[in-house]
Amino acid sequence: MAKNLTKRSEDYSKWYNELVIKADLAENSGVRGCMVIKPYGFSIWEKIQAELDRMFKETGHQNAYFPLLIPKSYFSKEASHVDGFAKECAVVTHYRLKNDEDGKGIIVDPEAKLEEELIIRPTSETIIWDTFRKWVHSYRDLPLLINQWANVVRWEMRTRLFLRTTEFLWQEGHTAHATKDEAISETKLILDIYAEFAENYMAIPVIKGLKTESERFAGAIDTYCIEALMQDGKALQSGTSHFLGQNFAKAFDVKFTAKDGKQDYVWASSWGVSTRLMGALIMTHSDDNGLVLPPNLAPDQVVIVPIYRNDEQFETVCKVAKEVMNELRAIGIRVKFDDRDTHKPGWKFNEYELKGVPIRLAIGPRDVENGTLELARRDTLEKEIISRDAVVAIVETLMDEIQKNLYKKAEIFRKEHTSQVSTYEEFKEVLETKGGFIYAHWDGTIETEEQIKNDTKATIRCIPLDAKEEDGKCMVTGKPSKRKVLFAKAY
Amino acid sequence: MAKNLTKRSEDYSKWYNELVIKADLAENSGVRGCMVIKPYGFSIWEKIQAELDRMFKETGHQNAYFPLLIPKSYFSKEASHVDGFAKECAVVTHYRLKNDEDGKGIIVDPEAKLEEELIIRPTSETIIWDTFRKWVHSYRDLPLLINQWANVVRWEMRTRLFLRTTEFLWQEGHTAHATKDEAISETKLILDIYAEFAENYMAIPVIKGLKTESERFAGAIDTYCIEALMQDGKALQSGTSHFLGQNFAKAFDVKFTAKDGKQDYVWASSWGVSTRLMGALIMTHSDDNGLVLPPNLAPDQVVIVPIYRNDEQFETVCKVAKEVMNELRAIGIRVKFDDRDTHKPGWKFNEYELKGVPIRLAIGPRDVENGTLELARRDTLEKEIISRDAVVAIVETLMDEIQKNLYKKAEIFRKEHTSQVSTYEEFKEVLETKGGFIYAHWDGTIETEEQIKNDTKATIRCIPLDAKEEDGKCMVTGKPSKRKVLFAKAY
Repeated sequence: MAKNLTKRSEDYSKWYNELVIKADLAENSGVRGCMVIKPYGFSIWEKIQAELDRMFKETGHQNAYFPLLIPKSYFSKEASHVDGFAKECAVVTHYRLKNDEDGKGIIVDPEAKLEEELIIRPTSETIIWDTFRKWVHSYRDLPLLINQWANVVRWEMRTRLFLRTTEFLWQEGHTAHATKDEAISETKLILDIYAEFAENYMAIPVIKGLKTESERFAGAIDTYCIEALMQDGKALQSGTSHFLGQNFAKAFDVKFTAKDGKQDYVWASSWGVSTRLMGALIMTHSDDNGLVLPPNLAPDQVVIVPIYRNDEQFETVCKVAKEVMNELRAIGIRVKFDDRDTHKPGWKFNEYELKGVPIRLAIGPRDVENGTLELARRDTLEKEIISRDAVVAIVETLMDEIQKNLYKKAEIFRKEHTSQVSTYEEFKEVLETKGGFIYAHWDGTIETEEQIKNDTKATIRCIPLDAKEEDGKCMVTGKPSKRKVLFAKAY
Repeated sequence: MAKNLTKRSEDYSKWYNELVIKADLAENSGVRGCMVIKPYGFSIWEKIQAELDRMFKETGHQNAYFPLLIPKSYFSKEASHVDGFAKECAVVTHYRLKNDEDGKGIIVDPEAKLEEELIIRPTSETIIWDTFRKWVHSYRDLPLLINQWANVVRWEMRTRLFLRTTEFLWQEGHTAHATKDEAISETKLILDIYAEFAENYMAIPVIKGLKTESERFAGAIDTYCIEALMQDGKALQSGTSHFLGQNFAKAFDVKFTAKDGKQDYVWASSWGVSTRLMGALIMTHSDDNGLVLPPNLAPDQVVIVPIYRNDEQFETVCKVAKEVMNELRAIGIRVKFDDRDTHKPGWKFNEYELKGVPIRLAIGPRDVENGTLELARRDTLEKEIISRDAVVAIVETLMDEIQKNLYKKAEIFRKEHTSQVSTYEEFKEVLETKGGFIYAHWDGTIETEEQIKNDTKATIRCIPLDAKEEDGKCMVTGKPSKRKVLFAKAY
């Protein structure tokens, strides 16, 4: 193929890396583990941001901004939190460069050493709870429903574009409540928002669940998550929402006076999704021809390519193309009209297929004569000749149909790659041959979880919220279990 | 006054600091020089972002994202650039924390020292031009019109909320062009966008001009700027647009093949505005009662406050208030209806005056009977009783009128505080007694500029683009001068 894209069946990982680069989504930078998000990739991220931001605001959340740099001492205040993040912290120790006295260039000025080192935020619970102490005095100040869109840094040893990068972009919500129940409701509300976003915008079916103790966020009482299944049978955690109890309120001494005059520590949640979602989006829908984007998140939903051999044809064709563009834009469709004369139609067809534009319309002189257009769907790769007069109605219907089709395809794939097993042998065999999600009984201990991970590299993705209560036996130890949990190898 | 806001005439600087805190715009954090932008302040910044982002996109620019961390070696490649920023760089030297062996807490792991130190971006020319080298090969790849919204860090010794902070938020545009003329046109196009935004959205009149050599951006050939005048007679540089020539292209070896097959270095511009604009917005319009916001950037353009003594009155009043809210929203006005029963109307009046909401509507039972409302304008503090049926028409007209009135007031203030002087004595006297913008002849040398700065603390804000050519003599040296330049003390 002209695109020279490795096939998924040959090397899924290579296919992914090539696709991210070739579709102009992102690339590695000269800084170890840090990516450059290219304009096309960033425009998809902007769509993701816009929809989530709207959903957060509609449920009463407000955006704010907190410092990038966190004093080391703040960071240490919540014990399990610092344990969880200490190994991957970028540390600022100096605040000035100077000319080397040897004339060999620029060095860090040893006299500009900070008294206390600063950590680049890997997440902002500590600096935010230090601030919340000043904001919360009475029950009247609660709830505090705050979100920030920010960059964070976690020093990762093995990085992959979007999926695991040293610096990444995300939103992090941080809320404070008067009661435990309210904080838990908030945690679940956000989980529902994440699931709704994944399913209705990203067209990715997800399983909502609770993380096991060993997979919990550092500092949380409970971590809820949404888990998606990629085409290579590996799971991808796509969003987490944490119930933090009073852990951070206690660490940062955030108390409030209740209606009855009593003082208590505040209850908390935190939650986030990141540019990792881009990885999920790419891996769920794309094929050997390139990216496939759901219409709800595609920066360009329709591209129009003119076909012509001379200036006269160009003019005739462009006239109709522009009319169609305007009609589609009038009903809110995002249309790109690519009338560049520097590239041939074939090149353009390839380019927009690679970039996942949901619908391509081509118009040539014959079409103008016949009152037709050629329509190509990116999801099914089907082409058909349609009537020019029906284009608006057809495209409008297809926007919805393609969105639903992508979801359905992903749902069928997941169904076909979800297994229920009873024995550990069966578990291992399914994992090796078919992969995917595996439901199995587990005895609830960290030891067994650890053993399974060491034996098979599979982890418990979550205890699904909709798991049926049933009496069973742990597939490894035979000890009693009340419900099956969800296993998979994961990104 | 209940607000306990220091009067501008007593202590302008104190007034500003108090206002920023009391109007819930921002506050200092526990990290030296880094601010927390509070939800209300951030919602204004979001409005600024949305409008600028639209203007950039309408002129063909695309957003992207580049790494926060820049290798020290990149940073050193453009000589004057590193000279300009070396003294204020936050430096990352380590990537891990660990438990102290003495059990005394967490320390920086000495074994996790980076081979090459990383700088937190103070601006992104170096990392972006290192990337552009991979993106630009032929004239077909040009122009590249890239913008990013990001946080940057410059280690400032004296900081003030919004005006000068160690970390700040901004947008930075970086463009690459095939010709010098195109790059200069881009630089000027952006200057015009900045000026249009300042005048039409922020309601701040600005003077467009060119910086002198000593005030130029480190690495630029020419720096264009917009300068605004604050109510204390000091200038505030509100945006800069730089023509970078081929400096960064040469430093990072970014060449392209022209149509005629010849190779040449690429031409560049860069430009930015930051959260500093928030400072300009606050200081231009606000008064001793608090913030005054132009309708085009106010998160809430109208607030409705119900007046009532009992539940029955509350119901009657709220019914009308909600109808008014819906009618106003239907024509696109941003309305807040504050029906909280935890705060009294008087408290609410004070609060929204402090927060600068352009129009306040109050409705009591008597108003419902009479078919009236009380309308208060924040800019003039005038109140009037209006007919309930006329509310939509009146508010719609006032949105425009208030926006224009704020601009006009600022323009009159600037006119009254702009002087033309011939002698250095006159210059010093005007500066001490009246302040403001001062036009004077200058001989064009760095030495004279430096002397004026040392003598008076005034700097050349810019060489205005619309300065008339006229023969004159430098007010200090008597040497010939071709045009007057613009002086002021500045933030």
